[in-house]
Amino acid sequence: MNRIRIALIGYGNVGKAFAEMLLRKKDYLRETFDTEAVITAICTRRLGGCLQPEGIDTKALTDDMFDRSLDALAIIGSGEYDVMAELTPIDIMTGQPATDHIRKALSLEKHVITANKGPVAWHYRELRDLAKEKGVSFCHEATVMDGVPVYNLAKENLMGCRVTALEGILNATTNFILSEMEKGVSFEDAIQEGRRQGFVEADPGMDIDGWDASAKLTALMNVLMDVQITPMDIRRTGIGEVTPEDIEAAKRQGKRIKLLCRGWIEDGKPVGVVEPALVEEGSLALTMEGTASYVTIYTDLMGGVTVIEHPFEPEIDHTAYGVLSDLLRILTDHSRSVQ
Amino acid sequence: MNRIRIALIGYGNVGKAFAEMLLRKKDYLRETFDTEAVITAICTRRLGGCLQPEGIDTKALTDDMFDRSLDALAIIGSGEYDVMAELTPIDIMTGQPATDHIRKALSLEKHVITANKGPVAWHYRELRDLAKEKGVSFCHEATVMDGVPVYNLAKENLMGCRVTALEGILNATTNFILSEMEKGVSFEDAIQEGRRQGFVEADPGMDIDGWDASAKLTALMNVLMDVQITPMDIRRTGIGEVTPEDIEAAKRQGKRIKLLCRGWIEDGKPVGVVEPALVEEGSLALTMEGTASYVTIYTDLMGGVTVIEHPFEPEIDHTAYGVLSDLLRILTDHSRSVQ
Repeated sequence: MNRIRIALIGYGNVGKAFAEMLLRKKDYLRETFDTEAVITAICTRRLGGCLQPEGIDTKALTDDMFDRSLDALAIIGSGEYDVMAELTPIDIMTGQPATDHIRKALSLEKHVITANKGPVAWHYRELRDLAKEKGVSFCHEATVMDGVPVYNLAKENLMGCRVTALEGILNATTNFILSEMEKGVSFEDAIQEGRRQGFVEADPGMDIDGWDASAKLTALMNVLMDVQITPMDIRRTGIGEVTPEDIEAAKRQGKRIKLLCRGWIEDGKPVGVVEPALVEEGSLALTMEGTASYVTIYTDLMGGVTVIEHPFEPEIDHTAYGVLSDLLRILTDHSRSVQ
Repeated sequence: MNRIRIALIGYGNVGKAFAEMLLRKKDYLRETFDTEAVITAICTRRLGGCLQPEGIDTKALTDDMFDRSLDALAIIGSGEYDVMAELTPIDIMTGQPATDHIRKALSLEKHVITANKGPVAWHYRELRDLAKEKGVSFCHEATVMDGVPVYNLAKENLMGCRVTALEGILNATTNFILSEMEKGVSFEDAIQEGRRQGFVEADPGMDIDGWDASAKLTALMNVLMDVQITPMDIRRTGIGEVTPEDIEAAKRQGKRIKLLCRGWIEDGKPVGVVEPALVEEGSLALTMEGTASYVTIYTDLMGGVTVIEHPFEPEIDHTAYGVLSDLLRILTDHSRSVQ
């Protein structure tokens, strides 16, 4: 049996759910890939690093197993893994330190999975080219719409198609807030409820101001339309100015207000827009409730193709599945190059 | 440069659009796969076969280039191709003669692409296993939702997920008829309009009676849920009994009538249902206009994921793209085994 060693840089909800998923799909991995997946390193900002080349029993993990002097770059530099999963919180304004983590792992010829969209929004082309040069994979399916395979759908399953435009709702927090406000819930109470359900961050400012959606649109455009933009290039308006009166007025016309993301090419240049938009009765965007999201990919050979992520279910971690799906892809593509 | 030789069994709208697409994407094929795709055989029921191992100039094809004595099995038996594309009209009740065509080509160790759903609905497991035994590909992406990658999405991009249920609108003709009836157009006039636009068949009986949708649901369940059913196993009700009054009554409640397809496992057994159903305001099914279709794939690790095919655009042949996408997949997976 083969063995694939994984380093988790960041160990919050996604990292923990991913570790559980690995245990749950142990038999599947053995039967399908003749492989055992072991976590050999875990790193958190608060506790430092835990490095056990023979494999960490994540169920028995305790704080005293961490070494404060082992930071992320030290763990990554150790090379005691085949795949580095970058799961740290995003800094949307810089894509750091995640980009440095990824650069280092790729330069050591390690496969990389990132659930952090910053590096894809800020440095996609450089990281893609570095991975190619080193003969390893750079996977980022979980960065947009969690585990919904939007990148792979377009890159592999719409092969030969040229992507001409993108449209979607990409931020769950704002869509949830707008959905709640339609029910008469206040902006603040909607945020509280989202926090209670676990998907709204302590500081949702980046969501509300449209930065998260802009980073996702940027990532999608960089990868699928082969352009080179940053979140700063998106024409961005958040939902902070949307009032209950606006929402009521829309409702009376059978419409809804949604934070729409759109990208296209105009006069040879990429244009990206994130803004609250009135969506019409009968439109797909109108049906997106709560934490649902979607993207429509417009192409030359197939017209528009849409994928939808349905509202989160409490017992399923969609982002952790995105990380797992990238791992399965690496196993499929490189099954001979792991231990 | 490599050369991949294609035999087209059936040469109607899809075959012709596919041949045009190959010419249009000639540079892409050369740049991406270092490959030239040539059509070496074309077979039609009316004219017989045209076999030119050096490659057929499809733009200059005339009736006198066909040999009436060369039928489909003779063309397939010639072995003068690497990929056989089965594009004959479907016989939903038997899956023949398409299944025999595919069996013969696979047994000669040729890759097969089918746009004909009959063989997938009736004999999927046998054909899949035969292809595996012979080390070739059996591709059928165009059989459901045309070129929308529903099979590949579930098999490759939702890897590791168990598919627990399926739901969708899979038949464009009936969805178009129902949409037209909502506008006050009669059943008969809607059929005429669909024929004029080119997507409704001369005899749409198989669509109206729900057989086409049943065959597609069967194909999806066989492939994605690894069951072994036939279209006869589907609980099937067509739209023949739906009256303008039913549609009006639904409309008054903000609802619509749609031919819904649903499949799931109950007490360990596969259950498939195709029937006209009242869909509610705010539901995804409600937004499916005209020739649009969708499928939602329910899984253990990702909840529901939906893909949508948007209404046909006159200048795009979605089915032909499905055939092309299968060809690109074969080139990706077997690039060393073609000439």
